[in-house]
Amino acid sequence: MSRDHFLHGFLNPKSVAFFGANNKGGSLAAIQIMDLIKSGYSGNVYPIHPKLESVMGFKTYKTISDIPEIPDLVVVVLSARIVPQVFRECGEKGVDKIVLISGGFRELSGDRKNTLTEEICEIANEYGMRFIGPNCLGVFNNWYEKENYNNSFNIAIWELLRKGNFSIASQSGTLSSHIWFDPDTLDLGLSKSLSVGNEANIDIVDCLEYYKDDEETEVIGLYIEELKRGKKFLEIARELTPQKPIIAIYVGGSQGGNRALQSHTGSLAGDSKIYDAVFKETGVIRTDYAQEFLDIALILSNKILPKGNRIGILTNSGGPGAMIANNAEKHGLAVPEFSDSLQKELKEILPSTAGFNNPVDCTFDMNLPYFYITLPEILMKSGEVDAILQYGVVGFQDVIEDFLQNEKIAKWAEFQIQSEEKMDKIAEQLLQPTMKNSRDYSVPMLYINPMSFTSPWSKRLRKNGALLFKLWDRPVNALAKVCEYVSYKKKIADL
Amino acid sequence: MSRDHFLHGFLNPKSVAFFGANNKGGSLAAIQIMDLIKSGYSGNVYPIHPKLESVMGFKTYKTISDIPEIPDLVVVVLSARIVPQVFRECGEKGVDKIVLISGGFRELSGDRKNTLTEEICEIANEYGMRFIGPNCLGVFNNWYEKENYNNSFNIAIWELLRKGNFSIASQSGTLSSHIWFDPDTLDLGLSKSLSVGNEANIDIVDCLEYYKDDEETEVIGLYIEELKRGKKFLEIARELTPQKPIIAIYVGGSQGGNRALQSHTGSLAGDSKIYDAVFKETGVIRTDYAQEFLDIALILSNKILPKGNRIGILTNSGGPGAMIANNAEKHGLAVPEFSDSLQKELKEILPSTAGFNNPVDCTFDMNLPYFYITLPEILMKSGEVDAILQYGVVGFQDVIEDFLQNEKIAKWAEFQIQSEEKMDKIAEQLLQPTMKNSRDYSVPMLYINPMSFTSPWSKRLRKNGALLFKLWDRPVNALAKVCEYVSYKKKIADL
Repeated sequence: MSRDHFLHGFLNPKSVAFFGANNKGGSLAAIQIMDLIKSGYSGNVYPIHPKLESVMGFKTYKTISDIPEIPDLVVVVLSARIVPQVFRECGEKGVDKIVLISGGFRELSGDRKNTLTEEICEIANEYGMRFIGPNCLGVFNNWYEKENYNNSFNIAIWELLRKGNFSIASQSGTLSSHIWFDPDTLDLGLSKSLSVGNEANIDIVDCLEYYKDDEETEVIGLYIEELKRGKKFLEIARELTPQKPIIAIYVGGSQGGNRALQSHTGSLAGDSKIYDAVFKETGVIRTDYAQEFLDIALILSNKILPKGNRIGILTNSGGPGAMIANNAEKHGLAVPEFSDSLQKELKEILPSTAGFNNPVDCTFDMNLPYFYITLPEILMKSGEVDAILQYGVVGFQDVIEDFLQNEKIAKWAEFQIQSEEKMDKIAEQLLQPTMKNSRDYSVPMLYINPMSFTSPWSKRLRKNGALLFKLWDRPVNALAKVCEYVSYKKKIADL
Repeated sequence: MSRDHFLHGFLNPKSVAFFGANNKGGSLAAIQIMDLIKSGYSGNVYPIHPKLESVMGFKTYKTISDIPEIPDLVVVVLSARIVPQVFRECGEKGVDKIVLISGGFRELSGDRKNTLTEEICEIANEYGMRFIGPNCLGVFNNWYEKENYNNSFNIAIWELLRKGNFSIASQSGTLSSHIWFDPDTLDLGLSKSLSVGNEANIDIVDCLEYYKDDEETEVIGLYIEELKRGKKFLEIARELTPQKPIIAIYVGGSQGGNRALQSHTGSLAGDSKIYDAVFKETGVIRTDYAQEFLDIALILSNKILPKGNRIGILTNSGGPGAMIANNAEKHGLAVPEFSDSLQKELKEILPSTAGFNNPVDCTFDMNLPYFYITLPEILMKSGEVDAILQYGVVGFQDVIEDFLQNEKIAKWAEFQIQSEEKMDKIAEQLLQPTMKNSRDYSVPMLYINPMSFTSPWSKRLRKNGALLFKLWDRPVNALAKVCEYVSYKKKIADL
């Protein structure tokens, strides 16, 4: 059970004390308290401050010893040199969990050992405390109170995020927090996020051990600059990936990259090829791109895995169809030629100017139920494809409504505009049968609408669970990585 | 002069006749007339229709012979089999320019020659007519009346677009029209767009010859499925690229891609490697991605070219800095270690916890004028970098305003919120000195803000001319391609 793991307490505290908070926007600790307020945290909050009466409406305490209970968690955002003293005070109070946000420890030393880091580690050991950091951005738990859908425990992310099954452990605070800055354009839901910073006491391997048994975590994302416990990582990754896929960004191997790391967490990065080999052997999905990291996570979070690497392409425009096919094959996906019987079946329902082989180019004339429901179903039933990319799920009514903004057009055009409710209904009717088929046949559908991702029709598609992209580049690359993972999983199962 | 080229008339007609338009939203020709209305077209519009009295408020004519003048341009959206007859009627009327939207010609024949295409080509020759298409999506000229900033000649794109110096010639209508569907998230301005379709009479080489002398075109984008006049392409591309960079998507070489092409424009694609060689020899920038196509065009359109491939990285977060450095080196960019004197200069103004070498990690504590103005200037002055990527140009006030939506936070927080006008002023003051330095030193600046691309601060940065991205993957890849082009240009100049 994940609740038996020591990290459970870091993500589910009933009370939190803060060192370093005030009422100003420039204070990281103040922002964290605002995160707690915004996310409806129901536990006790204890700001510690020598002068202020209150911070963000919470009564302050001059020292941690003044707090009327032993806080479940202590967050420290103070300059590095004061931290040993604060750690001792926490130890004396009986605290056993600290999130140490402050930087200025190991990363300032060219040396691998630094007395300040050693000192706080020793104090923590002495008092039996565990701590995350230093140099981290906090933790996030979207499932803090399962029964209460609107709250979370959040001292890391500045936006409210949809709940999900994807959890992160990251040696970069930006990858654990700031890639979530624009939730309107992100359908990926987040479960937990752990910013581990310099890993002086708790590392990514600890996080993986926790996520292994965490039932709210089904897909895992990692940002790695260095693995201190390489062997342990290999073991746990190998154990995890057949059940819970792991997506990893590993940064290192380049000269500029290594210099960046030294000033960031003080890590000395290893050879990129060694990490490649480790990831390949353990089925970890590697990406170098933040956006692809999120895209792969989105597809995997949806839990409809392709059975192989054959993709079917449905399009109403030749160019995107050709580009998808081209890039797919470059990235190791197959775009199989359809069997005669499947081509015959498609010919029966497609316009005469259409393309019947893979890609299926429906042309502009396709009727919507055929385009959204019948064609995907025919492809799924055929057993000839493992995933489908569909370009051109455009919101025609959005286009028309846009034109009707023009008075002259509005005067003359004979368009029937459907009500919002009717459009909602249409989206549901067009999408839901295919969503069901996608689950039943285990054939993921990736949709592409070149209109704005937040346009009305795009929103309707997304609301119905469509995995939607604005252009066709990203879904191909992300799907290729997912298919590599599927192939690894198959290989492992066959052993 | 570009006005002497026959394509000039296609983009600057004083009158247009339409075959196939009605008042319904599903009609492509009707949409094109709506495009004209929306874009303020000032010329005459003549819909031809056997029954309707008017189309979109324009008086209709039963046949083209009834129109009171010879239209400068005729647009045909009718089924293929009627087209020869319509071409003859146009010829008899004295028309010399046709845009043939209709599909259903060559692409339905496995054969390379098709009687219907041959037939219309012969009719066109007989009457001395030129035509674009068949199977295309129309043309667009954002500089139709230069003095009138609000209008354009547009029968291709469903949105109003900002004016620019980037022009497209494309064998895919989607690449010429529909990648422009979301103008709010696109700072790239468009000059002209020519959807050439099957190229039965006019091809991409014609477009390049036109763009060569067109003073409103400074950067060119191509989507290519097949080059019929390969040798001519080589000649014109070699001549153009030292002055006007060309970005090309070439689709072909993969099996699925080739099948897609056959059903799309009927092309037989060549070997991808041959095209690679041609592009390399002529300095054409190749990309396989629609988004990258736009990103490269954006950087080039800005007309600040790097002198070499050395990039400087400014960041306030270690992770993105390391990822940028890593990906930059993977894509052939250099992330040079800074000289001792430059490092010393940086140390004097940076917080003690910062990273002083390349990447420069300013940490969270950096003051804004230093971050936005001083640091980029120091790097530019040093002569040690040719381009700068800056991560973390975040809108703090946007974050704060978001928090203040919460009543409890609003009650307690002591934040000073600046007025809209003041924020506009701040953005201008932070950006303009660096925009000027960027021009003076010819060092492009690429900015990255992880918040929404349309968030208030992002909009302010964009308004001041910043090349802005939401994540750090895309600018690195696009810049790498731009630097390859710069290196080609240098090599050519040295010959």
